[in-house]
Amino acid sequence: MQIKRNVKIKKPLIHYITNPISINDCANAMLAIGAKPIMAEHPLEVSEITSASNALGVNLGNITDVRMKSMLISGKTAFKERIPQVIDLVGVGCSKLRFNYAKKFISQCHPDVIKGNLSEIRALCGIESNAKGIDAGECDKITEDNFDENIEIVKKLSLRTNSVIAATGAVDVITNGSKTYLIKNGCEMLSMVTGTGCMVTALIASYISSLDIFGATILAVSLMGICGELSHHVTGIGSFRTNLIDNLFTISDNTIINKIKCELK
Amino acid sequence: MQIKRNVKIKKPLIHYITNPISINDCANAMLAIGAKPIMAEHPLEVSEITSASNALGVNLGNITDVRMKSMLISGKTAFKERIPQVIDLVGVGCSKLRFNYAKKFISQCHPDVIKGNLSEIRALCGIESNAKGIDAGECDKITEDNFDENIEIVKKLSLRTNSVIAATGAVDVITNGSKTYLIKNGCEMLSMVTGTGCMVTALIASYISSLDIFGATILAVSLMGICGELSHHVTGIGSFRTNLIDNLFTISDNTIINKIKCELK
Amino acid sequence: MQIKRNVKIKKPLIHYITNPISINDCANAMLAIGAKPIMAEHPLEVSEITSASNALGVNLGNITDVRMKSMLISGKTAFKERIPQVIDLVGVGCSKLRFNYAKKFISQCHPDVIKGNLSEIRALCGIESNAKGIDAGECDKITEDNFDENIEIVKKLSLRTNSVIAATGAVDVITNGSKTYLIKNGCEMLSMVTGTGCMVTALIASYISSLDIFGATILAVSLMGICGELSHHVTGIGSFRTNLIDNLFTISDNTIINKIKCELK
Repeated sequence: MQIKRNVKIKKPLIHYITNPISINDCANAMLAIGAKPIMAEHPLEVSEITSASNALGVNLGNITDVRMKSMLISGKTAFKERIPQVIDLVGVGCSKLRFNYAKKFISQCHPDVIKGNLSEIRALCGIESNAKGIDAGECDKITEDNFDENIEIVKKLSLRTNSVIAATGAVDVITNGSKTYLIKNGCEMLSMVTGTGCMVTALIASYISSLDIFGATILAVSLMGICGELSHHVTGIGSFRTNLIDNLFTISDNTIINKIKCELK
Repeated sequence: MQIKRNVKIKKPLIHYITNPISINDCANAMLAIGAKPIMAEHPLEVSEITSASNALGVNLGNITDVRMKSMLISGKTAFKERIPQVIDLVGVGCSKLRFNYAKKFISQCHPDVIKGNLSEIRALCGIESNAKGIDAGECDKITEDNFDENIEIVKKLSLRTNSVIAATGAVDVITNGSKTYLIKNGCEMLSMVTGTGCMVTALIASYISSLDIFGATILAVSLMGICGELSHHVTGIGSFRTNLIDNLFTISDNTIINKIKCELK
Repeated sequence: MQIKRNVKIKKPLIHYITNPISINDCANAMLAIGAKPIMAEHPLEVSEITSASNALGVNLGNITDVRMKSMLISGKTAFKERIPQVIDLVGVGCSKLRFNYAKKFISQCHPDVIKGNLSEIRALCGIESNAKGIDAGECDKITEDNFDENIEIVKKLSLRTNSVIAATGAVDVITNGSKTYLIKNGCEMLSMVTGTGCMVTALIASYISSLDIFGATILAVSLMGICGELSHHVTGIGSFRTNLIDNLFTISDNTIINKIKCELK
């Protein structure tokens, strides 16, 4: 299997409309795996740019009126032209504005992948979440007790939206409604540096351009977890961030195969 | 005394409305000391988000119409709900727009802390400043000659606004109007990398969520200075920036106590 | 010759209106060579800030309505007050919006320097380009076959606009219409990390504040290439980015003189 090579050779153009907090890291994460990022967000050019791209990512972080408008234009273009797309639900539990927008986007644009932490996925489903800001709440960690309930929520969302769902957390849950995988890669530092969630979405957007949607999502989520594991032997989160990008750049297919902890539920 | 621990355990949610130049570094600085940053700026969600937060920071850097609107909404919410807040006067001497906005914000929102370099504090007070862009002017350094005059300006601003004032520079002056502390930590490199001033405000916002306002401001300003000292044995400002975040993450209470150079005026 | 010293001593204030993707790296690149960046973009303050600055840079990346408005205001102010200015044509081949805006800006503001990769320069001239997103197309590399044709395009643009043109690529072409220099510094990694093109423009803006326009442009483009060469012995693009800023900070005049590969065409 040639995992990273596909994207490295194709150099797909990925249109990612996202927030300024992690936009630089997201662009570098995409470049690290061989994709070509473009982050255009002007409503008068985004349709043209999505059309020319191999995949689309949209991200609710630090939402603005302009990006709300542009993401919807691009999402509709992507749906119409069968360009794969992913939405990142950043902060969907933090404000009514994001919650309503996310529901509208999903119903009008039919994203191929919906990604959020478990608090965000629960919030989107109208189920009580315990989010603290943009992070998953302590109570929303998947434990033995709530395991089956949470898997069920994620699966139902997938069946209802016909999207692959990636619910991230200490254990990541990825489902297409019929099959569900659990990914147990990652390390604590990934949640201690800003933007790693947005970067996962950048990787998903890059891989769905060139692989099947379900496999691409599993690969992207696992890859970030594995690169986190490879990066965390450092002094602090400043070095960790640099190492993470380095590891996305250098990691070999063999390392991915050896390190991946992905099991069918 | 448990200095950093308070925040690390509480994991306060900090709403910081700030500019894109240093927004990533500010988020990572807050994460480094254990706070949870959220940088939302949409006028339709900021009140909701400030309400859910433990403190608010606003920053005039790279000001936009949207952020001018949002910061005022959030500032009023914070004042009304007694959520501690800090304003960073970035570039207040550069344009009439920022000058007028800063005065309006302070009179309507009553921030607990007003932070700026000495040129900015002077400009806000309508006193001749020698700012060059967003940096303090050469002539606005505190010297033996102008020492008493400048301290007096800072104290008067504190008494008039009823805010703690942090006037940063080679020597930082922090006053609550009755007591004034001088902080002599820091290194030259802190002024040679972008965003360190904005990061100080991020630290102030984080600490005022959990400590008394005056003590929190002193701690935040000192901490950045000390971490600068610990970071400057490097090749250049690229590595310095990485080290600075690493040191914010790793520094122990003992190191803070040993290194702090804070004296009552 | 004292290459870097001029700027280091003058500490020119540089107004750069640019995109959020690389805005932090651009500010740090300018600080690294001794300039003072200010990135203000509010239409109501940019004229005031450009007036107080020693040079202006504008950048089409991630274009917004507000920046389109502000860049035009600042460009006109710079032209009227004879403040040197440079435009970066990021993505001019990606959308009609940027194409039309670039033509308008150039005709109304008369920038001293126009910078783009070869695909962008070709697109601006209405000649078929093979751009992929914001990167130069594979087919737009200068080869032996298309060499003379491409040089001719760049020279004609210079004569028509009366601007120095910097057409970047594996070989950079810089012309003032009568003299044309080829710069052969650089390394592949420079194109594998986001924002290096925007940083070149940041360096051009910094140097045109203090040197003659043509010489400043040659120096800025060469300097980025040389610092790329000095930085690429690293693990990946995360470290490369840090090293690049470090090398911009530390590089000596002697190293520049020894490493520069600049020849008159």
